[in-house]
Amino acid sequence: MMSSWKDNIRSVVPYTPGEQPNQPHMIKLNTNENPYPPAPEVKSVLDGFDPDKLRLYPDPKAQALVDALAQYYHVGADQVFVGVGSDDVLSIAFLTFFNSDKPIFFPDITYSFYPVWADVYKIPYETKPLGEHFEIHAEDYAAPNGGVIFPNPNAPTSRYEDLSVVEEIIKANRDSVVIVDEAYIDFAGPSALSLVPKYDNLLVVQTFSKSRSMAGMRIGYAIGQPELIKAMNDVHYSINSYTMSRLAIELGVCAVKSEDYFKQCIEKIKATRTWTVEQLKDLGFEFAAEPSANFIFAAHPKYPAEALFTALRKANIYVRYFNTGRISNYLRITVGTDEEMHRLIEFLKTYKN
Amino acid sequence: MMSSWKDNIRSVVPYTPGEQPNQPHMIKLNTNENPYPPAPEVKSVLDGFDPDKLRLYPDPKAQALVDALAQYYHVGADQVFVGVGSDDVLSIAFLTFFNSDKPIFFPDITYSFYPVWADVYKIPYETKPLGEHFEIHAEDYAAPNGGVIFPNPNAPTSRYEDLSVVEEIIKANRDSVVIVDEAYIDFAGPSALSLVPKYDNLLVVQTFSKSRSMAGMRIGYAIGQPELIKAMNDVHYSINSYTMSRLAIELGVCAVKSEDYFKQCIEKIKATRTWTVEQLKDLGFEFAAEPSANFIFAAHPKYPAEALFTALRKANIYVRYFNTGRISNYLRITVGTDEEMHRLIEFLKTYKN
Repeated sequence: MMSSWKDNIRSVVPYTPGEQPNQPHMIKLNTNENPYPPAPEVKSVLDGFDPDKLRLYPDPKAQALVDALAQYYHVGADQVFVGVGSDDVLSIAFLTFFNSDKPIFFPDITYSFYPVWADVYKIPYETKPLGEHFEIHAEDYAAPNGGVIFPNPNAPTSRYEDLSVVEEIIKANRDSVVIVDEAYIDFAGPSALSLVPKYDNLLVVQTFSKSRSMAGMRIGYAIGQPELIKAMNDVHYSINSYTMSRLAIELGVCAVKSEDYFKQCIEKIKATRTWTVEQLKDLGFEFAAEPSANFIFAAHPKYPAEALFTALRKANIYVRYFNTGRISNYLRITVGTDEEMHRLIEFLKTYKN
Repeated sequence: MMSSWKDNIRSVVPYTPGEQPNQPHMIKLNTNENPYPPAPEVKSVLDGFDPDKLRLYPDPKAQALVDALAQYYHVGADQVFVGVGSDDVLSIAFLTFFNSDKPIFFPDITYSFYPVWADVYKIPYETKPLGEHFEIHAEDYAAPNGGVIFPNPNAPTSRYEDLSVVEEIIKANRDSVVIVDEAYIDFAGPSALSLVPKYDNLLVVQTFSKSRSMAGMRIGYAIGQPELIKAMNDVHYSINSYTMSRLAIELGVCAVKSEDYFKQCIEKIKATRTWTVEQLKDLGFEFAAEPSANFIFAAHPKYPAEALFTALRKANIYVRYFNTGRISNYLRITVGTDEEMHRLIEFLKTYKN
């Protein structure tokens, strides 16, 4: 007989993270990591860190990190929420704000974690199809809903929507919280942060994992008006009051302050992206939208993506492939160093189906 | 007019963490931290850590840490779950296992986070009163329920229940998951880990924050049969797939392996506890149960705890005071170094109400 405790398990279909292979000499272009190391100041702070302090709890408010972000983005400290990567921040935002009986809305092609959070927290949802060029149609979001979330730039499409589209969605939803997931914004156009003073229903979420080269440290944050941030903190303190380790706080603070290095890395990645896109175009690759993140979403009319993905893998070049619907002929390729992208292009030049 | 998004905020009464004052020369005996630094090997690993690796995501499975714990406790790797402190582990266990319409049971005097998790996840609960000596009555838990959780030793009472009591509760609840929260077990008697092979409904939760001197790093874990651990991992990967930072994994592994240092620290703290309890007895303090954690729960028949708490604070000695019901005349005093406890006792010797 089955014990009945098994009937009470929350059953979920978990998110599948991109594989994290660890081969010597591999070219890892599959999880949108930054090819450059964290700021040199991070090394200095790490070297100077006194491990004896680890016996003590961290500051549950992570105030030093909150303050550094507030200063950097010119907002109040009561407008900043920090968490264990932007996934933690987004998960808490779902739990805090999406408690309506009406469905939340997000695009049909988007970050695959959204439906997973909706399922685990039992939030009804409805997806809105992207257009032919993977564009978001703002009018689709102008219907009664329990909340809205979309990434800008979107993943895995790498398409950036103009702020006017973002604002139209926020404006049409003054009775819902609208979350703009800006994990990749530093590689794209202006951020929705400029809209925060105007809209009390806007939450902007960003991360240290991409533009700040700190995926291994797990730091994400949200910025919004104080009422949103307070509600998130109340839920956060009801789940786990000490989430940010002493090291995450100290290394995070110095990464925020290393602004010059941060900007240089972004410019390098954008230049490499431009070069790679040109090369891919010469090879016949197509893009449904202009690549605007630290990854490129590309399809070749002659070479099926799945075969290309497998061939690249054999050549020790890891990219991401989603075998699903309208995007099943696309590859998502993280922008690495110039050398890595040269090797990718060299391989593709010799590739025959 | 109020925007209706405010109606959909999850409203909670958040857990209040113990204050984290940071005064020079303070004696901090208020949050049950370990007075000794982490193992010396932690410093070596930290010194040798290459910060460039932080640009890459950590292993989402934290396999190195899971394996180190599995080896230490002689269980399979599929029997170990790791999280961001035991609060993260407990929170995920609540979400994973407590999905019945029946109430979960826990003691009326216990870790104050249990009702907070129940509230945030909308889990019905019922508390069971501890006895005169703060003992758990196993028979109280032999009624239909949606799950059971209790700490052993209990907090803030510092009372340890014999394994026979623990086993009686597990046995009476084969249709519920029973969580034994062993944050303080290393300072007390034998762990319920020995019961894991016998009971598929038992989950044992422990932490690096107390006996392993790593509160600042945020590492906790659970051990149970593989089916329980898989269910927790499925929920975990549905919330945040990369929770353990690269540093948490690497420093955690070496803390587990530093067994001799770990055992020495525990013996020192237990000896200091014995000395302190004797001194407190000489001063007329009373204990409803034998102190068995790295903290002492004591009351004085003549001196009200609140006044004592305030006086200690003025003397820069921080302890914890809970102004509630049956425990309102008790102080919870973390066991610090010998020198810290001497200073506490010296102060109490001169204390006049």
